[in-house]
Amino acid sequence: MTITIIGTGLIGGSMALALRDLGIASHIIGVDHTPAHCEKALALGIVDETAGWEAAVDRSSLVILATPINAAEALLPMILDRVDRQVVLDVGSTKKVICDAVADHPRRSRFVATHPMWGTEYSGPEAAVRGAFVNKATVICSRNDSDADAVEMVESIYRQLGMHLVYMDATEHDLHVAYVSHISHITSFALANTVLEKEREEDAIFELASGGFESTVRLAKSNPAMWVPIFMQNRENILDVLNEHIAQLRKFKACLEKENEAYLQELIEKANGIRRILK
Amino acid sequence: MTITIIGTGLIGGSMALALRDLGIASHIIGVDHTPAHCEKALALGIVDETAGWEAAVDRSSLVILATPINAAEALLPMILDRVDRQVVLDVGSTKKVICDAVADHPRRSRFVATHPMWGTEYSGPEAAVRGAFVNKATVICSRNDSDADAVEMVESIYRQLGMHLVYMDATEHDLHVAYVSHISHITSFALANTVLEKEREEDAIFELASGGFESTVRLAKSNPAMWVPIFMQNRENILDVLNEHIAQLRKFKACLEKENEAYLQELIEKANGIRRILK
Repeated sequence: MTITIIGTGLIGGSMALALRDLGIASHIIGVDHTPAHCEKALALGIVDETAGWEAAVDRSSLVILATPINAAEALLPMILDRVDRQVVLDVGSTKKVICDAVADHPRRSRFVATHPMWGTEYSGPEAAVRGAFVNKATVICSRNDSDADAVEMVESIYRQLGMHLVYMDATEHDLHVAYVSHISHITSFALANTVLEKEREEDAIFELASGGFESTVRLAKSNPAMWVPIFMQNRENILDVLNEHIAQLRKFKACLEKENEAYLQELIEKANGIRRILK
Repeated sequence: MTITIIGTGLIGGSMALALRDLGIASHIIGVDHTPAHCEKALALGIVDETAGWEAAVDRSSLVILATPINAAEALLPMILDRVDRQVVLDVGSTKKVICDAVADHPRRSRFVATHPMWGTEYSGPEAAVRGAFVNKATVICSRNDSDADAVEMVESIYRQLGMHLVYMDATEHDLHVAYVSHISHITSFALANTVLEKEREEDAIFELASGGFESTVRLAKSNPAMWVPIFMQNRENILDVLNEHIAQLRKFKACLEKENEAYLQELIEKANGIRRILK
C-alpha cells in the first residue's frame, strides 16, 4: 500500500525503513515542512518521493503523523477533513491533547491514537534506525473510538514491527509516561546543566566520564523541538512527578548534611527495589 | 607474578580475569571477608586460591585493594605495615581519604592511588566481566608520592588493560568524580524512589519503560555497601553538586508552572551543550 509519513525524522524515518523492509509499504510519500529533511529523507532512501500533505494524504491508504506533538495536534483535524477511507495514525508522546482535538470530528473513527515506546536522543532523517521498535511496547489509546478496520490495520502493522500492544485511555497513558519517560528527560537535561554550570574543566568530564554518567546524561542531547511541547502538554503530570523527585533528592541531601549513614543505606536499599521491575 | 586481590567483587574480579588473560598474573590469591564471595570467586576461576590477607600479602608482588572504600581506608595502613618490596594499588572511587590515611606511613611510597573509571550496577564475583576497562581512563593520584618502580609497574599494567592514564591530585580527583560519577548515582537512586513511591502500577512501568528510563535508572540497582561510604567520604563535593542540581530542576519546575516555553527551550538548548563533551 501507499503510506504517507508526515515528519520524516527519528520516529517517522525509522517507521518508513521498517514498513518498507517488511513489505508493508509499496510506496512511501514523505511530508516535512523542513526542506532539508525532505532532501535528506529522499537521499537516504527513507521515502520514495516528497509532497505537500494534502496531495500525499489523498493518494495514501495509511497516514502516519510523526511530527512534534504540537504540530500533530494542529494538523490532525485538517487531515481528517480530507479523509474518507484512509487510516490516520499518530505516534506522539502524549495522547490526551490530540484525542481531545478530534473528539467531535465527524471522521474521528479513521484515527488511531498510538505511542510506540521507542526512541533515541537523536533527531532528523539521519537518526532513523533500521530494526527499531522490535520487542518494545506500543500503547493504543481509546481503541473503541476508532473504526474496527482501522484498529485492525494498525495492530497488524505494529505486530509485524515486532511490538507488543498495550491498551489504555489517554489520561492513563499521559500519567504513566510522565513516570517512565518524561521525568527521565527532565532529570537528564538538569544533570547536563548542573555539570556544564559547575564543572569548568570540560576536559576532565571528557576524560573521566564513564558509563554511568553517559547513560544518565545521554537523554540531555534530545531535541527541544520535540520535548518542549511534550513537557508543556503533560505539565500537570510532570509537575507532580518532579515535585516528588525533588523531595526524594532532598532526602539524600539531608543524609549527607547530617551524616546519617543508616538512612542513606535505607534509601539506597529502597531504590534497589527497581530491580523487581527492570530486569 | 603472584597477585593478591583483596575484594573479589565487580572490580577486583574483573581485574583478576584481565590480569590472567593478559599473562600478567601467574597466580592469583583472593581475599574476601565474605566467605560466599571466596567460594564463588574460586568456583568461577577468578582466583587460584583464597587466603587471609596477611599471608596473601607476604607471598605477592602486587596487592590490589578492591574493597569498598571504608574497608580499604582501614586496611591499607595495616597492609603497608607488612610490605617491603611489594606494590600496593587501590581502585577506590574517592582518593583523598585513603591518601591521607597513609600520608605519613614509612612505606607510603609502595602504594599507588588509582581509580579505573569503569563499573556496572552489579556487584559480587559473579558480576566480574571479561574485557572490562578497555578504552576507559584510569586516574593515578599523587604519583610523586610513590616509588618510581611502583608507578612504573602500575602504569604498565593499566596500559596493558587497554586504559589511558590521567594524572591529578586526590582533591582534584574527588571534585571531578562528584560531577561525572557520584551525582549520577544520587539522581538515579532518587529517580527510582520517585517512581516506586508514586507509580503504584508496577505493571505499567514494566510494560512501558523504554530505553530512556532504563538508562537513567539503571544505576539505582547499585550496591549500598559500595556507595554509602563513597557518598559519605565525598559528601562536601557531592552536596555542592546536589544543591546545584536541585536548583537546575527548580528552573524546569518554574517553566512548567509558569508555562514559560521560551525559557524551557533555552534550558534544553543549554543542556544540549553536553554534546560538545560526550560524543
